[in-house]
Amino acid sequence: MSITAPAGFVASGHAAGIKASGALDLALLATDDGVPVPTAATFTTNLAAAAPVQVSRAHLASAQGRATAVVVNSGNANAATGTPGRNDAQRMCRLVAEGLGVAEDQVLVCSTGLIGIPLPMNPIEAGIPTLVAARAGSEEAAVRAATGILTTDSGRKEALVTGSTFTVAGMAKGAGMLAPDMATMLAFLTTDAAIEPRALADLLRIAVRDSFNSFTVDGCTSTNDTVILMASGRAGVADPNVVVDAVTEACSTLAGHMLADAEGATKIMQVRVTGARSEGEAHQAARKVADSLLVKCSLNGADPYWGRVASDLGSAGVDFDMDRLTIAYGGVAVCREGVAAEHDATAVADHLNGSLIDIHCQLGLADGDGVVMGVDLGYGYIDENRTTS
Amino acid sequence: MSITAPAGFVASGHAAGIKASGALDLALLATDDGVPVPTAATFTTNLAAAAPVQVSRAHLASAQGRATAVVVNSGNANAATGTPGRNDAQRMCRLVAEGLGVAEDQVLVCSTGLIGIPLPMNPIEAGIPTLVAARAGSEEAAVRAATGILTTDSGRKEALVTGSTFTVAGMAKGAGMLAPDMATMLAFLTTDAAIEPRALADLLRIAVRDSFNSFTVDGCTSTNDTVILMASGRAGVADPNVVVDAVTEACSTLAGHMLADAEGATKIMQVRVTGARSEGEAHQAARKVADSLLVKCSLNGADPYWGRVASDLGSAGVDFDMDRLTIAYGGVAVCREGVAAEHDATAVADHLNGSLIDIHCQLGLADGDGVVMGVDLGYGYIDENRTTS
Repeated sequence: MSITAPAGFVASGHAAGIKASGALDLALLATDDGVPVPTAATFTTNLAAAAPVQVSRAHLASAQGRATAVVVNSGNANAATGTPGRNDAQRMCRLVAEGLGVAEDQVLVCSTGLIGIPLPMNPIEAGIPTLVAARAGSEEAAVRAATGILTTDSGRKEALVTGSTFTVAGMAKGAGMLAPDMATMLAFLTTDAAIEPRALADLLRIAVRDSFNSFTVDGCTSTNDTVILMASGRAGVADPNVVVDAVTEACSTLAGHMLADAEGATKIMQVRVTGARSEGEAHQAARKVADSLLVKCSLNGADPYWGRVASDLGSAGVDFDMDRLTIAYGGVAVCREGVAAEHDATAVADHLNGSLIDIHCQLGLADGDGVVMGVDLGYGYIDENRTTS
Repeated sequence: MSITAPAGFVASGHAAGIKASGALDLALLATDDGVPVPTAATFTTNLAAAAPVQVSRAHLASAQGRATAVVVNSGNANAATGTPGRNDAQRMCRLVAEGLGVAEDQVLVCSTGLIGIPLPMNPIEAGIPTLVAARAGSEEAAVRAATGILTTDSGRKEALVTGSTFTVAGMAKGAGMLAPDMATMLAFLTTDAAIEPRALADLLRIAVRDSFNSFTVDGCTSTNDTVILMASGRAGVADPNVVVDAVTEACSTLAGHMLADAEGATKIMQVRVTGARSEGEAHQAARKVADSLLVKCSLNGADPYWGRVASDLGSAGVDFDMDRLTIAYGGVAVCREGVAAEHDATAVADHLNGSLIDIHCQLGLADGDGVVMGVDLGYGYIDENRTTS
């Protein structure tokens, strides 16, 4: 499993000294020949978007959906840092571009860490030439890159999907907005399929919608969230409809790693809403349930009280008719036509005591379906988030 | 402090046996002469609205904004109970109407407790005649009514506001959506000011917007939330613009009692947003911050990390420009023009270690202001909500 598994990519990681711990805190992903390739990205919708998000968005537009490299630092978000922060993000790109001998707008940049603290540019300036020089297609180099982007993560998050003619690989950091000082979700994907920039952008939008956007930890949207997909084309032209499935699968694997790594969480919940007025409404209702503090607490206590689920569906802002509602835990209906249903309480209790809880809400209105994955709420979340020091 | 303080009202409470504990679980509020008076109500926007909400809404419409009495039971929400539940709510009204010798649609009904369990009608049918017979204008009777509506509340929640010519009184139960099995917020207000139904409805809408709707515990909207205001007219005609202030003050007092009673909360936060594009946007942004899990955890740990506040403002769905943002804790600016501001860290720490935290966000865009009150998130919230048994 390696971000350099698809043909045409190199990577590296370096401990520049941004993190006091001395852990790896710089990562590079680049094409092996310094030639820009079709690249797509989705960025946070947060209007307090961090400097690197602003710079990367501008570079990708200026280079018309192509890039040669992505540089990442962990340990500082470079967010809420104003004009100096934008200059610092720009400078990180310039240093990498100089090292690779390419134009500055061919380099994208991501940061993750605490908000509101100026980026320590001395170690970064000293470290980038070493980072660039260390780039390689080896498994070891890929491991260092996948490690250099981590913050409070308990371990590397990687994915590999092999298609008939092409490969998709991914590396990520984050657990939704779980970690206190390292709030960001970053994901990087590579493929050797040949896809033009516009198709690649469409493809990534769909893959993110069907993966990362269907996972929630605490409903927060970070200032730095970024997903980047680079396509080297070395494996030749592939059908975008096939590639989208592989990219979605890789993204889902990474999202699953994030959920499993959510601090304080003891259970994962899969909220399936069917029979909604539309797919969008199904997704919105499922997200309301998965983000509900009361439902999250119920899950933590393995409590079968479905009244909260009904209440959340009724206040989700979607079309809803209580008298048509069915709710099932682990396939056992506990509510039918909006009222309590006779059921096997032991089967429900057994399911709720497991680690993957399936909550199925059939709204009975039309045929809109949606799934959102979430986690319960335990002491650990509070412990992890009550202080940043 | 008594719901019967304004002239023209009687009240009572009774232990019918709905609660296994034997505590008071029925309450009545009525006019002292059995004549209907102008009455206004705001009900939950939850589409899974409980049976009593549906029945009360219909009665108030049928009686053209007038009512003689309100009957309340605690210990069972009569929500997710289907047609039988609606029949039960209707029957509660009919029993009170018979006791008072008035038309059924002159009686409103509220319930609070667990969702999805049929209302135990035997004790209720046996108890209502006793409840009706016990009605009185005494302080003792009012205390029993204010007690009979409680569930997990730690004590009675009452308010009294004395105007120049009129009086406003209130009683309430709830703590947002805090208590696990008793999720509802109910508030009842009386005044002896003379106000016609239409003006009374407008007045209550404004008062609720400026009080209850500016408080949040966990962002959930219950199936039973109801606020009812009855105006006896005994004190003669009063200027609605004066009465609205008194009603708002009474509602704010009740809302304050609820926040102070929020389980697991150790601090109350006042989020003030100024300089927003509009009053509505200011309120929306303030609510986003007050409901943010990360901000709530920060407060619990007295952590001064303002990056989360900035991130929530940026994702609040309102117009926002990071470069114009100022954030202050307890009047001390920690962020100016979107970047960290030099400040007295000891003063901020002292403020954050207090029990009422003031977070002021100046967006610097226009002149829309809004305030939302919230609470921190501690272990107690999880303890209280992880099981309903």
